[in-house]
Amino acid sequence: MTALENLARLGLELPSPPAAVSNYDTWARTGNLVVTSGQLPWEQGVMRFPGKLGAQVTVRQGYQAARLATLNGIAQLQQAARDLERIRRIVRVEGNVHCAPGFRDHPAVLDGCSDLLVAVFGERGRHTRTALGIAEMPLDACVQLSFWAEL
Amino acid sequence: MTALENLARLGLELPSPPAAVSNYDTWARTGNLVVTSGQLPWEQGVMRFPGKLGAQVTVRQGYQAARLATLNGIAQLQQAARDLERIRRIVRVEGNVHCAPGFRDHPAVLDGCSDLLVAVFGERGRHTRTALGIAEMPLDACVQLSFWAEL
Amino acid sequence: MTALENLARLGLELPSPPAAVSNYDTWARTGNLVVTSGQLPWEQGVMRFPGKLGAQVTVRQGYQAARLATLNGIAQLQQAARDLERIRRIVRVEGNVHCAPGFRDHPAVLDGCSDLLVAVFGERGRHTRTALGIAEMPLDACVQLSFWAEL
Repeated sequence: MTALENLARLGLELPSPPAAVSNYDTWARTGNLVVTSGQLPWEQGVMRFPGKLGAQVTVRQGYQAARLATLNGIAQLQQAARDLERIRRIVRVEGNVHCAPGFRDHPAVLDGCSDLLVAVFGERGRHTRTALGIAEMPLDACVQLSFWAEL
Repeated sequence: MTALENLARLGLELPSPPAAVSNYDTWARTGNLVVTSGQLPWEQGVMRFPGKLGAQVTVRQGYQAARLATLNGIAQLQQAARDLERIRRIVRVEGNVHCAPGFRDHPAVLDGCSDLLVAVFGERGRHTRTALGIAEMPLDACVQLSFWAEL
Repeated sequence: MTALENLARLGLELPSPPAAVSNYDTWARTGNLVVTSGQLPWEQGVMRFPGKLGAQVTVRQGYQAARLATLNGIAQLQQAARDLERIRRIVRVEGNVHCAPGFRDHPAVLDGCSDLLVAVFGERGRHTRTALGIAEMPLDACVQLSFWAEL
Protein backbone atom coordinates (compact mmCIF):
# COMPACT_ATOMS: atom_id res chain seq x y z
CA MET A 1 0.00 0.00 0.00
CA THR A 2 1.13 3.52 -0.70
CA ALA A 3 1.57 6.15 1.99
CA LEU A 4 -1.57 7.94 0.74
CA GLU A 5 -3.54 4.69 0.90
CA ASN A 6 -2.33 4.14 4.44
CA LEU A 7 -3.39 7.65 5.40
CA ALA A 8 -6.86 7.02 3.91
CA ARG A 9 -7.09 3.70 5.76
CA LEU A 10 -6.39 5.60 9.00
CA GLY A 11 -9.12 8.10 8.14
CA LEU A 12 -6.56 10.87 7.74
CA GLU A 13 -6.34 13.47 5.06
CA LEU A 14 -3.12 15.28 4.24
CA PRO A 15 -3.51 18.97 5.12
CA SER A 16 -2.03 21.82 3.12
CA PRO A 17 1.54 22.22 4.37
CA PRO A 18 1.45 25.05 6.94
CA ALA A 19 3.25 28.21 5.88
CA ALA A 20 6.28 29.54 7.74
CA VAL A 21 5.40 32.00 10.51
CA SER A 22 8.19 34.29 9.38
CA ASN A 23 10.98 34.90 6.85
CA TYR A 24 12.13 31.30 6.20
CA ASP A 25 11.20 28.20 4.18
CA THR A 26 9.25 25.20 5.45
CA TRP A 27 11.52 22.62 3.78
CA ALA A 28 14.79 22.44 1.89
CA ARG A 29 16.35 19.79 -0.30
CA THR A 30 20.09 19.16 -0.47
CA GLY A 31 21.23 16.20 -2.53
CA ASN A 32 18.89 13.34 -1.65
CA LEU A 33 18.04 14.79 1.76
CA VAL A 34 14.97 16.83 2.62
CA VAL A 35 14.75 18.64 5.95
CA THR A 36 11.74 20.50 7.31
CA SER A 37 11.48 23.49 9.58
CA GLY A 38 10.00 22.86 13.03
CA GLN A 39 6.43 21.56 12.66
CA LEU A 40 3.73 22.54 15.14
CA PRO A 41 0.32 20.98 15.92
CA TRP A 42 -1.68 23.21 13.55
CA GLU A 43 -5.08 21.86 12.51
CA GLN A 44 -7.01 23.93 9.96
CA GLY A 45 -5.23 27.07 11.07
CA VAL A 46 -5.74 26.47 14.81
CA MET A 47 -2.90 25.57 17.17
CA ARG A 48 -4.20 22.52 19.05
CA PHE A 49 -3.39 21.71 22.68
CA PRO A 50 -1.35 24.81 23.58
CA GLY A 51 0.62 24.78 26.83
CA LYS A 52 3.03 22.51 28.65
CA LEU A 53 3.05 18.80 29.21
CA GLY A 54 2.78 18.18 32.91
CA ALA A 55 0.61 21.29 33.31
CA GLN A 56 -2.14 22.26 30.82
CA VAL A 57 -1.58 19.34 28.43
CA THR A 58 -2.03 15.64 29.22
CA VAL A 59 0.13 12.87 27.77
CA ARG A 60 -2.82 11.70 25.68
CA GLN A 61 -3.27 15.21 24.27
CA GLY A 62 0.47 15.50 23.68
CA TYR A 63 0.34 12.24 21.71
CA GLN A 64 -2.44 13.73 19.54
CA ALA A 65 -0.45 16.93 19.10
CA ALA A 66 2.62 14.98 18.00
CA ARG A 67 0.42 13.14 15.49
CA LEU A 68 -0.90 16.45 14.11
CA ALA A 69 2.58 17.96 13.83
CA THR A 70 3.68 14.79 12.01
CA LEU A 71 0.77 15.05 9.58
CA ASN A 72 1.95 18.58 8.82
CA GLY A 73 5.49 17.27 8.41
CA ILE A 74 4.31 14.60 5.95
CA ALA A 75 2.53 17.37 4.01
CA GLN A 76 5.83 19.28 3.81
CA LEU A 77 7.63 16.14 2.64
CA GLN A 78 5.01 15.57 -0.04
CA GLN A 79 5.46 19.09 -1.32
CA ALA A 80 9.24 18.58 -1.37
CA ALA A 81 9.14 15.12 -2.98
CA ARG A 82 5.98 15.74 -5.07
CA ASP A 83 5.07 12.08 -4.48
CA LEU A 84 5.34 10.38 -1.06
CA GLU A 85 6.42 7.17 -2.83
CA ARG A 86 9.67 8.91 -3.76
CA ILE A 87 10.61 9.05 -0.07
CA ARG A 88 13.02 6.19 0.52
CA ARG A 89 13.00 6.59 4.27
CA ILE A 90 12.48 8.90 7.19
CA VAL A 91 15.98 9.39 8.58
CA ARG A 92 15.47 11.45 11.70
CA VAL A 93 12.84 13.05 13.90
CA GLU A 94 13.85 15.82 16.28
CA GLY A 95 11.31 15.67 19.06
CA ASN A 96 10.88 18.71 21.27
CA VAL A 97 8.28 18.68 24.02
CA HIS A 98 7.11 21.79 25.89
CA CYS A 99 7.42 20.75 29.55
CA ALA A 100 6.53 21.84 33.03
CA PRO A 101 9.10 21.08 35.78
CA GLY A 102 9.42 17.39 36.56
CA PHE A 103 7.86 16.05 33.35
CA ARG A 104 9.62 12.86 32.24
CA ASP A 105 7.23 11.12 29.85
CA HIS A 106 8.57 12.56 26.56
CA PRO A 107 8.73 9.14 24.86
CA ALA A 108 4.98 8.52 25.28
CA VAL A 109 4.25 11.92 23.71
CA LEU A 110 6.64 11.45 20.79
CA ASP A 111 5.21 8.01 20.05
CA GLY A 112 2.32 9.97 18.52
CA CYS A 113 4.83 10.86 15.81
CA SER A 114 6.70 7.56 15.55
CA ASP A 115 3.56 5.42 15.47
CA LEU A 116 2.07 7.50 12.64
CA LEU A 117 5.28 7.45 10.57
CA VAL A 118 5.44 3.66 10.75
CA ALA A 119 1.70 3.29 10.05
CA VAL A 120 1.97 5.50 6.97
CA PHE A 121 5.37 4.54 5.53
CA GLY A 122 5.87 1.03 6.91
CA GLU A 123 9.55 0.02 7.07
CA ARG A 124 10.44 3.26 5.25
CA GLY A 125 8.99 5.13 8.21
CA ARG A 126 11.47 3.80 10.75
CA HIS A 127 13.63 6.68 11.99
CA THR A 128 16.08 7.89 14.61
CA ARG A 129 14.72 10.21 17.26
CA THR A 130 15.84 12.82 19.75
CA ALA A 131 13.63 13.75 22.71
CA LEU A 132 14.19 17.01 24.55
CA GLY A 133 12.13 18.93 27.08
CA ILE A 134 11.88 22.59 26.08
CA ALA A 135 11.31 25.32 28.63
CA GLU A 136 9.50 27.88 26.49
CA MET A 137 8.09 27.11 23.05
CA PRO A 138 7.19 29.65 20.36
CA LEU A 139 3.43 30.30 20.19
CA ASP A 140 2.99 28.12 23.31
CA ALA A 141 3.01 24.99 21.10
CA CYS A 142 3.19 21.79 23.15
CA VAL A 143 5.46 20.02 20.63
CA GLN A 144 7.79 21.01 17.82
CA LEU A 145 9.06 18.31 15.45
CA SER A 146 11.58 18.47 12.62
CA PHE A 147 11.95 15.78 9.96
CA TRP A 148 14.85 14.58 7.83
CA ALA A 149 13.99 12.26 4.93
CA GLU A 150 15.94 10.59 2.13
CA LEU A 151 14.58 10.65 -1.42
CA MET B 1 25.95 41.27 -6.17
CA THR B 2 28.22 38.96 -4.23
CA ALA B 3 27.66 38.13 -0.57
CA LEU B 4 30.68 40.28 0.36
CA GLU B 5 29.31 43.19 -1.66
CA ASN B 6 25.98 42.83 0.13
CA LEU B 7 27.73 42.83 3.49
CA ALA B 8 29.61 46.01 2.53
CA ARG B 9 26.38 47.64 1.36
CA LEU B 10 24.89 46.86 4.80
CA GLY B 11 27.94 48.46 6.44
CA LEU B 12 29.00 45.10 7.87
CA GLU B 13 32.45 43.59 7.97
CA LEU B 14 33.02 39.88 8.27
CA PRO B 15 34.72 39.17 11.64
CA SER B 16 37.37 36.55 12.19
CA PRO B 17 35.49 33.29 12.80
CA PRO B 18 35.32 32.88 16.61
CA ALA B 19 37.39 29.99 17.97
CA ALA B 20 35.80 27.05 19.73
CA VAL B 21 35.52 27.51 23.51
CA SER B 22 36.77 23.96 24.05
CA ASN B 23 38.06 20.76 22.42
CA TYR B 24 36.01 20.76 19.18
CA ASP B 25 35.93 22.32 15.70
CA THR B 26 33.89 25.32 14.62
CA TRP B 27 32.80 23.80 11.29
CA ALA B 28 32.97 20.50 9.44
CA ARG B 29 32.47 19.55 5.82
CA THR B 30 30.97 16.26 4.72
CA GLY B 31 30.32 15.81 1.01
CA ASN B 32 28.77 19.08 -0.17
CA LEU B 33 27.43 19.95 3.28
CA VAL B 34 29.04 22.27 5.79
CA VAL B 35 27.77 22.42 9.35
CA THR B 36 28.89 24.84 12.05
CA SER B 37 29.10 24.48 15.80
CA GLY B 38 26.72 26.63 17.83
CA GLN B 39 27.42 30.30 17.14
CA LEU B 40 27.09 32.91 19.87
CA PRO B 41 26.74 36.71 19.72
CA TRP B 42 30.45 37.47 20.09
CA GLU B 43 31.57 40.91 18.90
CA GLN B 44 35.31 41.61 19.00
CA GLY B 45 35.77 39.09 21.80
CA VAL B 46 32.86 40.38 23.90
CA MET B 47 29.64 38.42 24.40
CA ARG B 48 26.90 40.95 23.60
CA PHE B 49 23.48 41.06 25.29
CA PRO B 50 23.99 38.27 27.88
CA GLY B 51 20.93 36.98 29.74
CA LYS B 52 17.45 35.77 28.93
CA LEU B 53 14.82 37.07 26.56
CA GLY B 54 11.83 38.12 28.61
CA ALA B 55 14.13 39.17 31.47
CA GLN B 56 17.45 41.03 30.92
CA VAL B 57 17.27 41.08 27.12
CA THR B 58 14.63 42.84 24.99
CA VAL B 59 13.33 41.48 21.68
CA ARG B 60 15.14 44.27 19.85
CA GLN B 61 18.42 43.31 21.56
CA GLY B 62 17.76 39.65 20.83
CA TYR B 63 17.31 40.51 17.15
CA GLN B 64 20.71 42.26 17.22
CA ALA B 65 22.27 39.29 18.99
CA ALA B 66 20.88 36.88 16.39
CA ARG B 67 22.34 39.12 13.69
CA LEU B 68 25.77 39.04 15.39
CA ALA B 69 25.71 35.26 15.81
CA THR B 70 24.78 34.98 12.13
CA LEU B 71 27.68 37.21 11.11
CA ASN B 72 29.95 34.84 13.03
CA GLY B 73 28.27 31.90 11.30
CA ILE B 74 28.87 33.47 7.88
CA ALA B 75 32.54 33.90 8.87
CA GLN B 76 32.71 30.17 9.68
CA LEU B 77 31.09 29.32 6.34
CA GLN B 78 33.58 31.53 4.52
CA GLN B 79 36.47 29.74 6.20
CA ALA B 80 34.92 26.38 5.23
CA ALA B 81 34.08 27.35 1.64
CA ARG B 82 37.03 29.74 1.16
CA ASP B 83 34.73 31.89 -0.99
CA LEU B 84 31.14 32.75 -0.03
CA GLU B 85 30.17 32.52 -3.72
CA ARG B 86 30.78 28.77 -3.51
CA ILE B 87 27.85 28.44 -1.09
CA ARG B 88 24.91 27.26 -3.15
CA ARG B 89 22.40 27.74 -0.37
CA ILE B 90 21.83 27.92 3.35
CA VAL B 91 19.92 24.73 4.15
CA ARG B 92 19.04 25.05 7.80
CA VAL B 93 19.28 27.32 10.82
CA GLU B 94 18.86 25.88 14.28
CA GLY B 95 17.60 28.75 16.38
CA ASN B 96 17.95 28.51 20.13
CA VAL B 97 16.78 31.38 22.30
CA HIS B 98 17.66 31.78 26.00
CA CYS B 99 14.26 32.41 27.62
CA ALA B 100 12.66 33.45 30.86
CA PRO B 101 9.35 31.77 31.76
CA GLY B 102 6.48 32.79 29.51
CA PHE B 103 8.55 34.15 26.63
CA ARG B 104 6.87 33.38 23.28
CA ASP B 105 8.39 35.77 20.78
CA HIS B 106 11.17 33.52 19.45
CA PRO B 107 10.33 34.21 15.79
CA ALA B 108 10.91 37.97 16.13
CA VAL B 109 14.33 37.30 17.69
CA LEU B 110 15.38 34.76 15.08
CA ASP B 111 14.36 37.08 12.26
CA GLY B 112 17.62 38.89 13.10
CA CYS B 113 19.27 35.81 11.60
CA SER B 114 16.87 35.10 8.74
CA ASP B 115 16.72 38.71 7.56
CA LEU B 116 20.52 38.96 7.42
CA LEU B 117 20.93 35.65 5.56
CA VAL B 118 18.49 36.76 2.88
CA ALA B 119 20.02 40.26 2.67
CA VAL B 120 23.50 38.79 2.20
CA PHE B 121 22.84 35.70 0.08
CA GLY B 122 19.56 36.60 -1.68
CA GLU B 123 17.61 33.54 -2.84
CA ARG B 124 20.56 31.35 -1.79
CA GLY B 125 20.01 32.57 1.77
CA ARG B 126 16.52 31.12 2.12
CA HIS B 127 16.60 28.36 4.74
CA THR B 128 14.60 26.11 7.04
CA ARG B 129 14.50 27.06 10.70
CA THR B 130 13.87 25.56 14.10
CA ALA B 131 13.01 27.81 17.06
CA LEU B 132 13.42 26.53 20.60
CA GLY B 133 13.41 28.23 23.99
CA ILE B 134 16.41 27.11 26.03
CA ALA B 135 16.36 27.14 29.81
CA GLU B 136 20.05 27.65 30.52
CA MET B 137 22.57 28.66 27.88
CA PRO B 138 26.36 28.23 28.10
CA LEU B 139 28.12 31.49 28.98
CA ASP B 140 24.70 33.11 29.51
CA ALA B 141 24.45 33.77 25.75
CA CYS B 142 20.98 34.98 24.73
CA VAL B 143 21.00 33.03 21.44
CA GLN B 144 22.87 30.07 19.96
CA LEU B 145 22.55 29.40 16.23
CA SER B 146 23.87 26.53 14.12
CA PHE B 147 24.08 26.63 10.33
CA TRP B 148 23.94 23.97 7.61
CA ALA B 149 24.97 25.06 4.11
CA GLU B 150 25.36 23.34 0.75
CA LEU B 151 28.44 24.02 -1.37
CA MET C 1 46.30 2.59 16.34
CA THR C 2 42.74 1.58 15.62
CA ALA C 3 39.77 2.96 17.52
CA LEU C 4 39.36 -0.40 19.29
CA GLU C 5 43.03 -0.41 20.28
CA ASN C 6 42.62 3.10 21.66
CA LEU C 7 39.57 2.02 23.65
CA ALA C 8 41.54 -0.92 25.09
CA ARG C 9 44.45 1.38 25.96
CA LEU C 10 41.97 3.58 27.88
CA GLY C 11 40.70 0.50 29.73
CA LEU C 12 37.31 0.81 28.05
CA GLU C 13 35.18 -1.89 26.52
CA LEU C 14 32.55 -1.17 23.91
CA PRO C 15 29.10 -1.95 25.39
CA SER C 16 26.23 -3.48 23.46
CA PRO C 17 24.47 -0.57 21.74
CA PRO C 18 21.52 0.34 23.99
CA ALA C 19 18.11 -0.40 22.48
CA ALA C 20 15.59 2.33 21.71
CA VAL C 21 13.20 3.04 24.59
CA SER C 22 10.28 3.13 22.17
CA ASN C 23 9.14 2.73 18.55
CA TYR C 24 12.21 4.10 16.69
CA ASP C 25 15.68 3.09 15.53
CA THR C 26 18.95 3.82 17.31
CA TRP C 27 20.83 4.80 14.14
CA ALA C 28 20.17 5.42 10.45
CA ARG C 29 22.43 5.62 7.44
CA THR C 30 21.77 7.92 4.49
CA GLY C 31 24.44 8.06 1.80
CA ASN C 32 27.76 8.24 3.63
CA LEU C 33 26.22 9.76 6.75
CA VAL C 34 25.23 7.90 9.90
CA VAL C 35 23.15 9.62 12.55
CA THR C 36 22.24 8.22 15.97
CA SER C 37 19.22 8.75 18.15
CA GLY C 38 19.81 10.60 21.42
CA GLN C 39 22.28 8.65 23.57
CA LEU C 40 21.93 8.54 27.35
CA PRO C 41 24.43 7.59 30.09
CA TRP C 42 23.35 3.95 30.36
CA GLU C 43 25.91 1.59 31.94
CA GLN C 44 24.99 -2.09 31.99
CA GLY C 45 21.29 -1.24 31.94
CA VAL C 46 21.51 1.38 34.68
CA MET C 47 21.05 5.11 34.04
CA ARG C 48 24.06 6.70 35.74
CA PHE C 49 24.03 10.13 37.42
CA PRO C 50 20.33 10.99 37.03
CA GLY C 51 19.24 14.56 37.74
CA LYS C 52 20.29 18.06 36.82
CA LEU C 53 23.66 19.71 36.56
CA GLY C 54 23.81 22.47 39.13
CA ALA C 55 21.58 20.45 41.47
CA GLN C 56 21.96 16.66 41.99
CA VAL C 57 24.83 16.19 39.53
CA THR C 58 28.30 17.72 39.77
CA VAL C 59 30.35 18.84 36.77
CA ARG C 60 32.73 15.94 37.37
CA GLN C 61 29.82 13.48 37.33
CA GLY C 62 28.38 15.18 34.24
CA TYR C 63 31.72 14.72 32.51
CA GLN C 64 31.59 10.98 33.35
CA ALA C 65 28.00 10.78 32.12
CA ALA C 66 28.92 12.45 28.82
CA ARG C 67 31.74 9.91 28.47
CA LEU C 68 29.30 7.03 29.05
CA ALA C 69 26.76 8.39 26.57
CA THR C 70 29.60 8.74 24.05
CA LEU C 71 30.69 5.15 24.60
CA ASN C 72 27.11 4.13 23.81
CA GLY C 73 27.19 6.36 20.74
CA ILE C 74 30.41 4.72 19.53
CA ALA C 75 28.73 1.34 19.98
CA GLN C 76 25.86 2.54 17.76
CA LEU C 77 28.33 3.77 15.15
CA GLN C 78 30.13 0.45 15.21
CA GLN C 79 26.87 -1.38 14.60
CA ALA C 80 26.09 1.00 11.71
CA ALA C 81 29.57 0.88 10.15
CA ARG C 82 30.35 -2.72 11.17
CA ASP C 83 33.98 -1.66 11.65
CA LEU C 84 34.99 1.58 13.43
CA GLU C 85 37.87 1.96 10.94
CA ARG C 86 35.30 2.65 8.24
CA ILE C 87 34.33 5.87 10.03
CA ARG C 88 36.10 8.67 8.20
CA ARG C 89 35.21 11.29 10.76
CA ILE C 90 32.81 12.38 13.44
CA VAL C 91 30.97 15.33 11.89
CA ARG C 92 28.79 16.65 14.69
CA VAL C 93 27.87 16.16 18.32
CA GLU C 94 24.60 17.59 19.63
CA GLY C 95 25.22 18.16 23.30
CA ASN C 96 22.21 18.54 25.58
CA VAL C 97 22.72 19.03 29.29
CA HIS C 98 19.96 18.70 31.90
CA CYS C 99 20.30 21.92 33.93
CA ALA C 100 19.10 23.60 37.07
CA PRO C 101 18.56 27.38 36.89
CA GLY C 102 21.78 29.36 36.57
CA PHE C 103 24.00 26.51 35.35
CA ARG C 104 26.54 27.77 32.80
CA ASP C 105 29.28 25.15 32.68
CA HIS C 106 27.96 23.08 29.74
CA PRO C 107 31.33 23.04 27.94
CA ALA C 108 33.12 21.32 30.86
CA VAL C 109 30.43 18.62 30.92
CA LEU C 110 30.46 18.05 27.16
CA ASP C 111 34.25 17.77 27.14
CA GLY C 112 33.61 14.28 28.56
CA CYS C 113 32.33 13.50 25.08
CA SER C 114 34.81 15.51 23.00
CA ASP C 115 37.86 14.27 24.88
CA LEU C 116 36.85 10.64 24.43
CA LEU C 117 36.09 11.04 20.72
CA VAL C 118 39.54 12.51 20.10
CA ALA C 119 41.24 9.90 22.31
CA VAL C 120 39.54 7.06 20.42
CA PHE C 121 39.48 8.34 16.84
CA GLY C 122 42.40 10.82 16.80
CA GLU C 123 42.07 13.45 14.07
CA ARG C 124 39.01 11.59 12.73
CA GLY C 125 37.35 12.29 16.07
CA ARG C 126 37.39 16.07 15.72
CA HIS C 127 33.81 17.34 15.43
CA THR C 128 31.48 20.31 15.57
CA ARG C 129 29.39 20.69 18.71
CA THR C 130 26.24 22.32 19.97
CA ALA C 131 25.70 22.87 23.71
CA LEU C 132 22.22 23.49 25.07
CA GLY C 133 20.77 23.48 28.57
CA ILE C 134 17.61 21.41 28.67
CA ALA C 135 14.87 22.05 31.21
CA GLU C 136 13.42 18.56 31.55
CA MET C 137 15.10 15.46 30.17
CA PRO C 138 13.41 12.11 29.46
CA LEU C 139 14.11 9.55 32.18
CA ASP C 140 15.83 12.29 34.22
CA ALA C 141 19.05 11.68 32.25
CA CYS C 142 21.68 14.35 32.95
CA VAL C 143 22.91 14.42 29.33
CA GLN C 144 21.61 13.41 25.92
CA LEU C 145 24.03 13.32 22.98
CA SER C 146 23.43 12.69 19.28
CA PHE C 147 26.17 11.83 16.81
CA TRP C 148 26.62 12.39 13.08
CA ALA C 149 29.48 10.52 11.41
CA GLU C 150 30.77 10.17 7.86
CA LEU C 151 31.69 6.74 6.50
